[in-house]
Amino acid sequence: MPVPSRPRVVVVGAGFGGLWAARALSRSPADVLLIDRNNYHTFLPLLYQVAAAELEPGDIVYPVRSILRGLPNADFALAEVRRINFSERLVYLDGRAVAYDYLIIAAGSASHFFGVAGGPEFAFPLKTLDQGIRLRNHILRCFEGAAHNPNPAERRRLLTFVIVGGGPTGVEFAGALAELLRRPLTKDYPRINFDEARVILLEAAESLLPGFPDRLRAYAQDHLRRMGVEVRVRATVDQITPQATHLKDGSLTPTETVVWTAGVRGVPQAETWGLPTGRGGRVATLPTLQVAGHPEVYVVGDLAYLEEAGRPLPMVAPVAIQQGRFAAENIARQIEGREPLPFRYRDRGTMVTIGRNAAVAQLGGRSFTGFPAWLIWLSVHLFNLIGFRNRLIVLINWAWDYFLYERAVRLILPGEVNPASK
Amino acid sequence: MPVPSRPRVVVVGAGFGGLWAARALSRSPADVLLIDRNNYHTFLPLLYQVAAAELEPGDIVYPVRSILRGLPNADFALAEVRRINFSERLVYLDGRAVAYDYLIIAAGSASHFFGVAGGPEFAFPLKTLDQGIRLRNHILRCFEGAAHNPNPAERRRLLTFVIVGGGPTGVEFAGALAELLRRPLTKDYPRINFDEARVILLEAAESLLPGFPDRLRAYAQDHLRRMGVEVRVRATVDQITPQATHLKDGSLTPTETVVWTAGVRGVPQAETWGLPTGRGGRVATLPTLQVAGHPEVYVVGDLAYLEEAGRPLPMVAPVAIQQGRFAAENIARQIEGREPLPFRYRDRGTMVTIGRNAAVAQLGGRSFTGFPAWLIWLSVHLFNLIGFRNRLIVLINWAWDYFLYERAVRLILPGEVNPASK
Repeated sequence: MPVPSRPRVVVVGAGFGGLWAARALSRSPADVLLIDRNNYHTFLPLLYQVAAAELEPGDIVYPVRSILRGLPNADFALAEVRRINFSERLVYLDGRAVAYDYLIIAAGSASHFFGVAGGPEFAFPLKTLDQGIRLRNHILRCFEGAAHNPNPAERRRLLTFVIVGGGPTGVEFAGALAELLRRPLTKDYPRINFDEARVILLEAAESLLPGFPDRLRAYAQDHLRRMGVEVRVRATVDQITPQATHLKDGSLTPTETVVWTAGVRGVPQAETWGLPTGRGGRVATLPTLQVAGHPEVYVVGDLAYLEEAGRPLPMVAPVAIQQGRFAAENIARQIEGREPLPFRYRDRGTMVTIGRNAAVAQLGGRSFTGFPAWLIWLSVHLFNLIGFRNRLIVLINWAWDYFLYERAVRLILPGEVNPASK
Repeated sequence: MPVPSRPRVVVVGAGFGGLWAARALSRSPADVLLIDRNNYHTFLPLLYQVAAAELEPGDIVYPVRSILRGLPNADFALAEVRRINFSERLVYLDGRAVAYDYLIIAAGSASHFFGVAGGPEFAFPLKTLDQGIRLRNHILRCFEGAAHNPNPAERRRLLTFVIVGGGPTGVEFAGALAELLRRPLTKDYPRINFDEARVILLEAAESLLPGFPDRLRAYAQDHLRRMGVEVRVRATVDQITPQATHLKDGSLTPTETVVWTAGVRGVPQAETWGLPTGRGGRVATLPTLQVAGHPEVYVVGDLAYLEEAGRPLPMVAPVAIQQGRFAAENIARQIEGREPLPFRYRDRGTMVTIGRNAAVAQLGGRSFTGFPAWLIWLSVHLFNLIGFRNRLIVLINWAWDYFLYERAVRLILPGEVNPASK
């Protein structure tokens, strides 16, 4: 009797979805190849802290190969997926093709500008480590530029920071930026008049954090305002130029820094690869997370579009993690000749940090604000960060920041692939 | 009686020389402007550990403004010095000119290729943070490329690392690279046959570490060889191509990675600025560190050429620190109407680490090898690193490495200004 060859599972993307899929597949009689364009996994929930000069880039990323070490059936390829031939079951990388029996696509999301003129060119997205470093460098350069600029109007423009989007990322970044300005930078730039510095948070809806309970939304808004953030709701951005943000109501804010957290969409590569994408560039999957017509292809995480109780699942890490695991289990069932099962999301809650001792959290139907919510946020993020060393160093940085009102890292690092363009 | 205006001292470069000059000037009745193209000071003695994926870039750099905080008479400008008008006493930055009464030039050094063909284009220098990150990324990409390459000759070329120059930096980097390969990378790349990986250290002289006592030179050579480094003395590089290193004796080593630590020279900007440069692009100064004919201009550190007892002072951090301080004191004397004094170097010793529990050190006429030298090296470097937080995090990384035989950081970071070119 011939030994049956082990099926090969290719996983595209080492974000939350792909990584947890690869881990879950370690229990299956399959060979796994995980592909990513970076050799590290990025803990995106803390990316805004890299942009706000609170954490170092290395603190929130972890080498993929270290994560895969304990998994003897898994290998890694540092590569860009150029093309996928779904009928021949081939993934084309630069210079070579990889055959698969099962494919999990966990390629994630990119910023969505909803057609706002100047958005892609002049706004700073905050979706990748490189973008986080680029934004931080830009913010610090604005202060360096303002420190020696004799023109008050130019100084004010350099020191005005506009954040578009009052969802969790926008709120967290606005809070972190306000704290960066209030304490560490006032010490660094004794010659700058910080009355000229502004953090403006724009949200198109009626209030910040749409979808959160009223009490938490009110708390977030009040707290940010007390921290000096100018919160403007019902504010829709119409156009972004290198010099200003224009709103639909005709008003204009001179600024060199527009941070875009207002929308995400599936990565544009999904269309290139020939996946059936719908609204927001996402791929509508079957309830089993399979792509219709291709029972061997799964899409998970931000790129997957799936509704539950009539509402689309949110594009957040817990959904990606659960879907990654679930797709792995469904493939295991298929290998055993069983039918894949439909995915069900277990919502364990959401939380958003605002600043020092201040956060909002919703867990198991209960709402928390202030210090308790902040402690929950801190513990959950520290616990979920991969790698004990990263946890230790992030903890040191946070403690440093907390007790000394000081940012440990305010470096304009050589971290830009192309500093000439945003 | 009119209040005499405070003289303005401009310091170019925030390396060891410039930084210590600015600090020493805090005691003088002068306004100090420190100029650097980066907003951080780089602790260059540990740069090779960034390249060997042992430390994160942020661990060895420290924001200049944080260092200047305690100095009320000092300001910082993030800028590139384009031109200096010595007769008008003006330093031209992008878009503005800064007047000085006294000028300290501490612009440092760059790699010197001694006319070796292909050196500037294809060898990796190791003189700036950006270069350290670039080298690390390249080394890790070589492993990623070899992991999936079916061609044995190409694999061997990708896994051959040539270091040119057996001075302290070459020895330290060869040791760190050998340790990176021996332990952490073997765990990361179980499919790579590490018999195909080589670290080759080339030195043109009779032995490694020219200038060190015989015992230390022999120890370093033996120890590196036991660590698996192929040490080749009397080996002069003739040409470097993208695919190989060619020696004067006609031999050729296929490799994609040539690290150049064989020579340094004064930064080429010194000539652009119109300074009188001599051999090695350095500026011969008066014994007082002043430039002949310009008693208000000082040159310190690697860029300064000064002989003591008939031998040129070495281009090392202790000389730069002592000269920076000394130039500041001489300017203080000039402000008081006194004559500047001649500089005398106090040589406190030198040390080179080779690897785990292994180093050589020469202190106060005594030689140390092995574990004692390694402990001295560790303490001195940790103590001299600026910033308590940096010390703590570097200590954690070293302890991690030491006890777990593991590199904490093997990330190919978005740290290259222009990844297309070296």
